[in-house]
Amino acid sequence: MAQLARGAVTPSLLAERALARAGECAGLNAFVALDAAHVLRQAAEADARRSRGSPASPIDGVPIAVKDNYLTIDYPTTACSRALPLEPAGVDATIVANLRRAGAIIFGKTNMHEWAYGATNATSSFGPTRNPRNPDHITGGSSGGSGAAVAAGVVAAALGSDTGGSVRIPSGACGIYGFKPSYGRASRHGVLPLSWSLDAPGLLAAALEDILLLLPYFLGADACDPTTARSRPLEPIPDLDAPRVLNLVGNGLERSAEVDQVMSTALIRTGLDVTDREVEGAAAYFAAWEAILHCEASSYHGAQLDRDPSGYSPVTRAHLEAGRMLTGVDLLKAQKLRGQLMAHLDGLGDWDALVLPTLPVVAPLIGDEWQSFGGRKVTTQDSMTWFCWIGNLAGLPCISIPCGASSNGLPVGMMLMGRPGADEHLLAVARRVDRRINMGA
Amino acid sequence: MAQLARGAVTPSLLAERALARAGECAGLNAFVALDAAHVLRQAAEADARRSRGSPASPIDGVPIAVKDNYLTIDYPTTACSRALPLEPAGVDATIVANLRRAGAIIFGKTNMHEWAYGATNATSSFGPTRNPRNPDHITGGSSGGSGAAVAAGVVAAALGSDTGGSVRIPSGACGIYGFKPSYGRASRHGVLPLSWSLDAPGLLAAALEDILLLLPYFLGADACDPTTARSRPLEPIPDLDAPRVLNLVGNGLERSAEVDQVMSTALIRTGLDVTDREVEGAAAYFAAWEAILHCEASSYHGAQLDRDPSGYSPVTRAHLEAGRMLTGVDLLKAQKLRGQLMAHLDGLGDWDALVLPTLPVVAPLIGDEWQSFGGRKVTTQDSMTWFCWIGNLAGLPCISIPCGASSNGLPVGMMLMGRPGADEHLLAVARRVDRRINMGA
Repeated sequence: MAQLARGAVTPSLLAERALARAGECAGLNAFVALDAAHVLRQAAEADARRSRGSPASPIDGVPIAVKDNYLTIDYPTTACSRALPLEPAGVDATIVANLRRAGAIIFGKTNMHEWAYGATNATSSFGPTRNPRNPDHITGGSSGGSGAAVAAGVVAAALGSDTGGSVRIPSGACGIYGFKPSYGRASRHGVLPLSWSLDAPGLLAAALEDILLLLPYFLGADACDPTTARSRPLEPIPDLDAPRVLNLVGNGLERSAEVDQVMSTALIRTGLDVTDREVEGAAAYFAAWEAILHCEASSYHGAQLDRDPSGYSPVTRAHLEAGRMLTGVDLLKAQKLRGQLMAHLDGLGDWDALVLPTLPVVAPLIGDEWQSFGGRKVTTQDSMTWFCWIGNLAGLPCISIPCGASSNGLPVGMMLMGRPGADEHLLAVARRVDRRINMGA
Repeated sequence: MAQLARGAVTPSLLAERALARAGECAGLNAFVALDAAHVLRQAAEADARRSRGSPASPIDGVPIAVKDNYLTIDYPTTACSRALPLEPAGVDATIVANLRRAGAIIFGKTNMHEWAYGATNATSSFGPTRNPRNPDHITGGSSGGSGAAVAAGVVAAALGSDTGGSVRIPSGACGIYGFKPSYGRASRHGVLPLSWSLDAPGLLAAALEDILLLLPYFLGADACDPTTARSRPLEPIPDLDAPRVLNLVGNGLERSAEVDQVMSTALIRTGLDVTDREVEGAAAYFAAWEAILHCEASSYHGAQLDRDPSGYSPVTRAHLEAGRMLTGVDLLKAQKLRGQLMAHLDGLGDWDALVLPTLPVVAPLIGDEWQSFGGRKVTTQDSMTWFCWIGNLAGLPCISIPCGASSNGLPVGMMLMGRPGADEHLLAVARRVDRRINMGA
């Protein structure tokens, strides 16, 4: 994006390079819809605006990849499910419309876990995605195509959505940056829901600076999404003097020795005041997140599932049927626990950010069904959301930052979480951490 | 209360009269705990303060009856259920504490529908209450003892609670005034819950002026009840120029010809601008209220029900077991409908109050299981909450005002509802209506 701003490249040249790179790495299966002629037409319009000296915005001409659950007027939107028709929607999601108005090139639609109802990207009507860092490994999901497109260097940034980590998981597994705003801070209008009280849209990018450049088109109130009624546009990122970071540990927050070592080294390199802090009852809070997710997903999909169950893969159908078994009393208990988690995290003292690894393991091998770490053996699915669900259940802003690699070269992500609504404050901590661990500052 | 202020009576004289009157109408079964010596001791203390010329407040020495689901340090609190011990709690509910501090005499505890889980007052571990207007008829409930105590002239005011009309129903059936504030405007700390997202405390009184005198001790924030965090103390009741009132009608809002005629006559006498307005989908909204009520009640009582089901009457137990059958998907649908009802009522245009009869029928005969009106045949239970649940599902401030009587002399109540949080605005309409229909102003 900096190159465009300097005039070092034209939008068309950038688009051609992106299309060429997408072709080279087609085997990753990152894109489910990509129309080269359409991309080049958009780029030519951006060229014209920039050569007239009147770009629509600083991001005019920047190619952005879009997860296939954002409605777009130019591409079909399928949520990588057979339940939806292969036709473009008549409307752009609010965030897509904002970016398009700013001159961004809506590059293509990215592969995802079917209906975002899973965190591996193994289940998709377009087939699984592969990790650019090592194609024998998964990207994680559900925004796996967006993660692969950015990590492979096709685009500098991509849109994702996050209900239990779906932006942060592929960011961590592919070694890029992934930001999920506070609940209600960014519009979800036109983003197909998974679980409306947990869902957030999000950004995946190759650099933190790119996330900051895109956020003005991302945060703020939208009359079409009532949950954003109190949201504000991006405010200046403050300079923090000595941020206090709490490193969350406890039963249910285990991680592999390898991830733990990379994280510990990175935390020391931040030079920040980092204190370990025990979170009790993680298992109960996790169950609450699952209950809310399953009830809301089953509620949203109920009518369609009854009408045509064949539109869903067997595993997604099983989730949806199971969600129907939960009782109202179960759901109320989960909703209460949600409030308790928010109060618990808020009450941990005087902190600027909470920190956890993004994932307890590095990107699993494709086909591996189980992960063992820290004395635990859990499904690969559960290992992906292992820490990330906390940010959704509590509505916190969260960011995953690359912080090193395992011995076999797979990336490790560090996740920072802020207080609800205080996205700028979290980004201030993230910028400081990033400069120390990734830019030697 | 005006007599006390003028010095026309002493607290002790007032308390003696109240005790005498309570004795005369013991057959109504309005009280479940009443300690004459304790009442007279409180009155003597109020005498002393008043004779010193230093009353604790304008209501110092006023006897107040308290529904048996408010915790009190001096009387046991049983919710008229066998599940709770016959021992005083170690704490007063916040509202009781406020009144006690103001010098009010905590007179006695009143009979109620078991756990407030019903609207007839027929089910109570202390037996049913009888209507002072005609003891062959029910008081309605669940604050039926409070309604009977006021209507019989024992006390000028009583505390109640309201989850689907439990303050307004006995007020309407017994011909007195009943006020339920907006959700979150008054503290429920120390009031045993039925359904925490629907419950409100409330006041029953012989005159609107008495409700206004008590509200300073009733409304406002209480750190012990987080739902009141944004509540304000009572503000001055404004003078409204020409309030606009919408008379709600529609499928599911039928009433008996007799009630309709008394209401219509009263509405004409108000001299106000009253317009009929159709509410669509009342049946679905009613089902939503029921689903939320049953799920929350079953959630609250679950552990106790498992431990000792014999503490509950068979009918209450059946409700609680049925509530466990509702699914999370059912509850989510109900929670969505709740939001839709709030938006629907808010969007009915430029109104100051909504009006409905408090009940579609006059107080039913004791033992009558069914009520027929307006082409409907419904259970007596359902006839009691027929209109009132709307105010709880939408969180509106509501008041029931006597507005006439049937041919057999049973009272008819008019219910006015305001916008959430705008309790003073509703009371302004109510005062104006009351002056026109009950004071010939």
